[in-house]
Amino acid sequence: MKTRLGPKEILFPVPAALVASGTMERPNVAPVAWVGMMGSSPPVLAISLKKTRYTLELIREYRQFTVNIPPAEKFVEVDYCGITSGRHRDKFADCAFTAIRGEKVQTPIIEECPFNIECAVIRELEVNDHIAIFGEILEVHVDVDKIDGTSPKGIDIGKIDPLVYCTAIREYWSIGKKLGDSFDAGRRIRDRVGSGRRPGS
Amino acid sequence: MKTRLGPKEILFPVPAALVASGTMERPNVAPVAWVGMMGSSPPVLAISLKKTRYTLELIREYRQFTVNIPPAEKFVEVDYCGITSGRHRDKFADCAFTAIRGEKVQTPIIEECPFNIECAVIRELEVNDHIAIFGEILEVHVDVDKIDGTSPKGIDIGKIDPLVYCTAIREYWSIGKKLGDSFDAGRRIRDRVGSGRRPGS
Repeated sequence: MKTRLGPKEILFPVPAALVASGTMERPNVAPVAWVGMMGSSPPVLAISLKKTRYTLELIREYRQFTVNIPPAEKFVEVDYCGITSGRHRDKFADCAFTAIRGEKVQTPIIEECPFNIECAVIRELEVNDHIAIFGEILEVHVDVDKIDGTSPKGIDIGKIDPLVYCTAIREYWSIGKKLGDSFDAGRRIRDRVGSGRRPGS
Repeated sequence: MKTRLGPKEILFPVPAALVASGTMERPNVAPVAWVGMMGSSPPVLAISLKKTRYTLELIREYRQFTVNIPPAEKFVEVDYCGITSGRHRDKFADCAFTAIRGEKVQTPIIEECPFNIECAVIRELEVNDHIAIFGEILEVHVDVDKIDGTSPKGIDIGKIDPLVYCTAIREYWSIGKKLGDSFDAGRRIRDRVGSGRRPGS
């Protein structure tokens, strides 16, 4: 039995991503839950920002940004960055975040976030009262003590403990436990139902 | 101390969203982790699909799709839908999913998913080897036993128990515990640092 909520901007679970903008000398940071992977070869992600946001102004100025995945324990800092404008406050200082130099862009990554993505703007698109920014991923960083080897498969999500956000419901959550591997778990059903083609296919 | 992984399509935590396409008579379903909110007034989300996917073909044919958030316990079904093409199999039947009629679009929503979003395509954008589909959200549904009242704030994430996915790492996770409320938790820092403007702002 379901009930209707009307057309709402609601999606979960999403990253409570900290988007850094600006430069090492004057960095800014703001949480952006409206983020998604959009392309590969080369990889591209999109973030979407209200037209009035200072982060948008800085991204347009430098044509670069970084996406930093905070650990669950930083939810208070993340929220502070969301309720405070970088126009008036140095949020790196207020949150005791350390801006460190990335490899490919002049916008810093955040040391206290165990996973970091450097992006260069390749396109922007107006979506009603928001601007969707498409960023080509130029480099990805992870804390050395949270990965085994050099493949993304070696990333230990339990050690990263990424913060989870639920839009509209406005709640921060932690991640729970690993359930299974993709491109693998579903074989159980294939073994049961078989892989014959349905009629007409 | 950080290590570099190179430019990779990697983002977490994201929804392991089940995108339904087609019609009540011949519905299809596939997991799409590349999804993000992109606009409001009216609300818009984007999903991104490889050009070869059957789901893309059906979405282009009907100009509609639904996004269904599965509970953690359905990770095997979700993965099966990812490793199997709807060109050849009836994945609703194979997974024992029930297609139910939505309010605004002819593509069904999935009864076994506690949260459902009906979308109409408003735009598509080529992003390298993917197509980003922008869908205006026309209606949102939630199981009545997982919400208190009629506001999104009343949604009980613990009862929904949404499946979490980590792209590139290729792992399904459950959600953990609630840490705090947004637009609220960060006040602790504001109380400590004050709200004076920084020099030059």
